[in-house]
Amino acid sequence: MIDPVALTADLVRCPSVTPVEGGALVLLEDLLTKGGFTCTRVDRGGVSNLFARWGRQGANRTFGFNGHTDVVPLGDEAAWTMPPFGAVIKDGYLYGRGSTDMKSGVAAFAAAALDFVTDTPPDGAVILAITGDEEGDALDGTTALLDWMATNGEAMSVCLVGEPTCPDVMGEAMKIGRRGSLNATFTVTGVQGHSAYPHRAKNPLPAVARLVDILASHALDQGTAHFDPSTLAVVTIDTGNPATNVIPAQTKAGVNIRFNDLHSGASLTEWMQGIADQVAADFGVRIAMQVKVSGESFITPPGPLSDLVGKAVKAETGRDPVLSTSGGTSDARFVQHHCPVVEFGLVGKTMHQVDERVAVDQIVQLKAIYGRILADYFA
Amino acid sequence: MIDPVALTADLVRCPSVTPVEGGALVLLEDLLTKGGFTCTRVDRGGVSNLFARWGRQGANRTFGFNGHTDVVPLGDEAAWTMPPFGAVIKDGYLYGRGSTDMKSGVAAFAAAALDFVTDTPPDGAVILAITGDEEGDALDGTTALLDWMATNGEAMSVCLVGEPTCPDVMGEAMKIGRRGSLNATFTVTGVQGHSAYPHRAKNPLPAVARLVDILASHALDQGTAHFDPSTLAVVTIDTGNPATNVIPAQTKAGVNIRFNDLHSGASLTEWMQGIADQVAADFGVRIAMQVKVSGESFITPPGPLSDLVGKAVKAETGRDPVLSTSGGTSDARFVQHHCPVVEFGLVGKTMHQVDERVAVDQIVQLKAIYGRILADYFA
Ligand SMILES: [Zn+2]
Ligand SMILES: [Zn+2]
Repeated sequence: MIDPVALTADLVRCPSVTPVEGGALVLLEDLLTKGGFTCTRVDRGGVSNLFARWGRQGANRTFGFNGHTDVVPLGDEAAWTMPPFGAVIKDGYLYGRGSTDMKSGVAAFAAAALDFVTDTPPDGAVILAITGDEEGDALDGTTALLDWMATNGEAMSVCLVGEPTCPDVMGEAMKIGRRGSLNATFTVTGVQGHSAYPHRAKNPLPAVARLVDILASHALDQGTAHFDPSTLAVVTIDTGNPATNVIPAQTKAGVNIRFNDLHSGASLTEWMQGIADQVAADFGVRIAMQVKVSGESFITPPGPLSDLVGKAVKAETGRDPVLSTSGGTSDARFVQHHCPVVEFGLVGKTMHQVDERVAVDQIVQLKAIYGRILADYFA
Repeated sequence: MIDPVALTADLVRCPSVTPVEGGALVLLEDLLTKGGFTCTRVDRGGVSNLFARWGRQGANRTFGFNGHTDVVPLGDEAAWTMPPFGAVIKDGYLYGRGSTDMKSGVAAFAAAALDFVTDTPPDGAVILAITGDEEGDALDGTTALLDWMATNGEAMSVCLVGEPTCPDVMGEAMKIGRRGSLNATFTVTGVQGHSAYPHRAKNPLPAVARLVDILASHALDQGTAHFDPSTLAVVTIDTGNPATNVIPAQTKAGVNIRFNDLHSGASLTEWMQGIADQVAADFGVRIAMQVKVSGESFITPPGPLSDLVGKAVKAETGRDPVLSTSGGTSDARFVQHHCPVVEFGLVGKTMHQVDERVAVDQIVQLKAIYGRILADYFA
């Protein structure tokens, strides 16, 4: 029996801030190899990833887990009351960067999988696809693993991503999809001038204000069957003009949109371009728009996989998890191109925060849930 | 006869970037003392100023000149085609930082005054109040001189500020007042949050956009008898949020207003406060406003002083100068509390720019105009 709390603590002690491996994947590779998994390090673009399979390649029933061992930076280090890589346990909580997001999740599914293949060798295969590049650009993380798997004849029949999914209470929510996400940067260019003679200049700031006002005032939709309403957040406006007697030539604004299945990166780009063009014409300035779509919206419609996970959660926690599609992006956006994917993990309240911590009993519960999912899947 | 071109060149060679004296005031003090002026260095707060009087203290008719020897920084030094402190003369132009703004003006009135008191000792006094702190905060410049004068029984009956006043052609404009100027900074504070959950945050950016849009869309007035319309320029909006997945807690905007005699710093502050309060209420954010009034609007109504200056300009250039109140602030805003003040100087086109330069013949003309003003005043 692998103790998922001790394993979480061991992983937290590895300072694996993206893109540093920090010893976390080496530790897992070692443990999984000893447990009968065939491990392959899939490193690309300076980041490390770990592929591990128990059972026969290409088995008809292959259950996959996906997760990450990299963590976000410490933030205000002085504000931590516990050593960020110390894994100190106090009053039922294990403290440390990555303790909820998501070393506890990785520890829980690794422990569950190791125990399961030992106790009840399944007719099929179990795959763990663990990346060290989720919190960064994610260009060479789960994508690299999936690319390598496709090239090497490895495939998952279904996949469970172990990210935290519960807002407040263990077991209350799982995710069956995610909204899409895009970032747009608007560069508004006018003509510099002296504050005392604004008619000789072309001030880009009133134009950016109007643009932002229009974008931020618009309700994109009211939500759909499985999705919350799409949201648009203006995240920054910057000019950097220190001189009060100068009208600047240029300013920039940044916008983040999380969108449901009523939109696509392309449709939103077209919508924003129309508004930018109109404002540019109204104010006599130039507006250049740059859009980066981090991920389109996707969904694994309610069905066998969500039923399987929901049943196990109910059995271990007494709660029927809601099928959510809220929240930011996750690597499920990559996995969904290959097989049905859902996400379930523990309470993510303190993720990315100072004094990030996880309730120790939730780790134990999470391992039990993952173990039950495996047992039910292969039953 | 003092050569005002040689004197301008000598002054340009003094690298007197605010607040550095650079030898400019020392040079003038020496020259004026030799010419019979009683000189007093009035230094305050780390900047140097020079008071010089010819004639009896407290004389009934005391003509004052005001100007500055400090200059703005070089800007893009590599872009200069002439040494910025070299005072090179080429094709009729004298090049250098401060050549138009306003070492030529100081040289012209110093030369005119020195010649005048030598040739035609007037029944009265001539005062030169020259500061080394006009381009900076101006807290310890002309204000220090005026404070010192008040304390020491020195007063000017009228004053001419020698700043460049002609937009394109020598003699076309003088200034009889200035619009007021104020800077307002708005700090908009909401509640930080994740871009994916904007309803849990309180984004200050749509609020600042609305605020800026309202302020920038409003026409303050249509101008008055002696003043252009008041103007409002939004000069910067800054957030400094590098994270597209974070809704920032705070953003700032800066506004510069140049206002005519229909407004005051207080009335505009009240107007902006009302809008800020309304936007804050509409968006559920806090908006803190900080206002700094650099100067209230003022005017020396057309009368004996503007007639005197206008007549001399007409005699030397053939042009009737318009009585303007346009442009930024100048130290006339301090002088106007003590005596009637107007401004006349040469063409200021290249002031504050790379390769700042002055037409040599304009310096000669300016000295002639200042000399004629003195002669007419004391006639
Ligand atoms: Zn995560
Ligand atoms: Zn000046």
